[in-house]
Amino acid sequence: MSEPVLRDEQRVLERIEQARRRPPRLRDEVVTSAHGAGGKASAALVEALFLPAFAPAEGAAPPLTDAAVLDLPGAQVAFSTDSFVVRPRFFPGGSIGHLAVHGTVNDLAMMGAEPRWLSCAFVIEEGLSVEELRRVATDMGQAAQAAGVQLVTGDTKVVGRGAADGLYVTTAGVGLVRAGVRLAADQVRPGDQVLVSGTLGDHGVAVLLARGDLALEAEVTSDTAPLADLVGRLLDAAPSLRWLRDPTRGGVATVCNELARAAQVAVVLDEAALPLDPVVGGACDLLGIDPLYVANEGKLVAVVGPEDAEAALEALRSHPLGARAARIGEVRGDPPGIVVLRTAFGGTRIVDMLVGDPLPRIC
Amino acid sequence: MSEPVLRDEQRVLERIEQARRRPPRLRDEVVTSAHGAGGKASAALVEALFLPAFAPAEGAAPPLTDAAVLDLPGAQVAFSTDSFVVRPRFFPGGSIGHLAVHGTVNDLAMMGAEPRWLSCAFVIEEGLSVEELRRVATDMGQAAQAAGVQLVTGDTKVVGRGAADGLYVTTAGVGLVRAGVRLAADQVRPGDQVLVSGTLGDHGVAVLLARGDLALEAEVTSDTAPLADLVGRLLDAAPSLRWLRDPTRGGVATVCNELARAAQVAVVLDEAALPLDPVVGGACDLLGIDPLYVANEGKLVAVVGPEDAEAALEALRSHPLGARAARIGEVRGDPPGIVVLRTAFGGTRIVDMLVGDPLPRIC
Repeated sequence: MSEPVLRDEQRVLERIEQARRRPPRLRDEVVTSAHGAGGKASAALVEALFLPAFAPAEGAAPPLTDAAVLDLPGAQVAFSTDSFVVRPRFFPGGSIGHLAVHGTVNDLAMMGAEPRWLSCAFVIEEGLSVEELRRVATDMGQAAQAAGVQLVTGDTKVVGRGAADGLYVTTAGVGLVRAGVRLAADQVRPGDQVLVSGTLGDHGVAVLLARGDLALEAEVTSDTAPLADLVGRLLDAAPSLRWLRDPTRGGVATVCNELARAAQVAVVLDEAALPLDPVVGGACDLLGIDPLYVANEGKLVAVVGPEDAEAALEALRSHPLGARAARIGEVRGDPPGIVVLRTAFGGTRIVDMLVGDPLPRIC
Repeated sequence: MSEPVLRDEQRVLERIEQARRRPPRLRDEVVTSAHGAGGKASAALVEALFLPAFAPAEGAAPPLTDAAVLDLPGAQVAFSTDSFVVRPRFFPGGSIGHLAVHGTVNDLAMMGAEPRWLSCAFVIEEGLSVEELRRVATDMGQAAQAAGVQLVTGDTKVVGRGAADGLYVTTAGVGLVRAGVRLAADQVRPGDQVLVSGTLGDHGVAVLLARGDLALEAEVTSDTAPLADLVGRLLDAAPSLRWLRDPTRGGVATVCNELARAAQVAVVLDEAALPLDPVVGGACDLLGIDPLYVANEGKLVAVVGPEDAEAALEALRSHPLGARAARIGEVRGDPPGIVVLRTAFGGTRIVDMLVGDPLPRIC
């Protein structure tokens, strides 16, 4: 038997355990920014509101994941959607237009799918400059071309002044799942290795700094990028690839928590192994936020069988988007549902789901 | 040769012809409500801004239709999206939740597809009551069940107070096109018959009256409904079915104009044959709006070969959603690209695309 990961935290674990046994509840009477942050409140909204409302009369509701896999005659098809409300709309490294394409194609890629077609729906505030809309659309067109997808159908709604903050973009995407590939939390088992394709938090910090309401001079570039090509290399190199997720809202901490809960495993991360741009790290220190919770838009977290970990890392590093890929942790059987960080000083701490929303509207 | 439809309007036709030969231009510097109305400004936005921006480096951009048909291995798949910003969110006959499901499943049905899966993305203004969100989600769940589709993937974004008007919902849908069916403007030819499945304008007038800022006491119920079942009957009864469209924003006038332009035919409508609820007609008279331009959310316009017109009408009338179906016009070869109305008094007039937006935010 392996040594327990957590020593002195039995009481904390028990309390978490108790909280999780309660059925999900939505205590709030109004929607708050926390419900859009991808953390605990978001999960409560999905589990206690959307799922029961969407449940068919008999039987359980479908799980409402970031991307669904549809069984079509002759093909498995991935299907996903995201709305984008980022502020400001242009930031170092990209724009709402890039995000609207990358966000959805990356959700498809995380299912092992080749993204192929996108829809786009615009909600525009009356008075938005046509020139700005053109820049956003041009960014979408270029991002789509670079990602190998076609924008094939769309919709435009205009609302009055004050009824939106300029422009919201919603994309949905359809992709073809590679034959024989099934990436899912239930494939994950103790001993599996956790990899990340590069530095944490670049996108969230880039947007935060671009808002200009912080007294920081540093410039950080968003990592927004399409990941399907990188995923293709990973699939070629690591037949044991179990699960993929892009750590957007809520960052690596959130996707690891989702994995731990869905697979009922422990995810043990090594703080010292987490790749971090020093400027991003410095900004996080100054802002008092943990980069583990800060969004990327061009990174992936992968879980592979231990036998393929080296080959997977090499495959990631062979691609420009994976140059700083690292092995950041491993999967254990116990404590189930928990993410644990081994700190740089040799201690351990539980990495829980986000409670509030430290970084609203970063995507 | 058949008698020309328009006698004294040669000069008008010539002017329209000239205008259409000019490449589409977007004169406006800012987005206005007209760009969201489905009329001329919307078309200019798509043709002069989105299409060039989305164009791949070489070759033409895909046409960006209400719904696209994707060639998958083993199946033809329809794919569509719409955002919903209706105000108020609840109105006689339905809610933004019903619209969000019906709008997208109907776009799929208009391609001859059986709607199967939906995504949903919410942009929520901080402070929206959880109870109201629950009502909207419950309406979506019920509408989806009634339409035979599953809500399988979603996203939630929260924006600050004042950055949205409560709640915007965007759905995208995937459906399977019936084998052998290809509904498209290029199938339409002179002599074809134009049918509508029921009364015009019910949805638009219902929402307008529900706003309560008109001094009208009348209550009109929205016709919001899923149309795939009705389309199924039509496909069974009329093998020559050429083209279908649901007259939402911009109404029957707009979809007929889109058809006339795409197929380069004339669409000649008979005013006396247009089914109209008397209360809707009365409200339109009082408001000075033409019901031909007012939205439905549960009606379809169909073009069938003349040999199937009777069978198609019978099939529509055999369904509760088509009880008041009528033959409202026919397709002619000349003047191409033009919609003409034979008025109840024996005259003719050109029915052009909408210029402004008489009814903002009705869907």
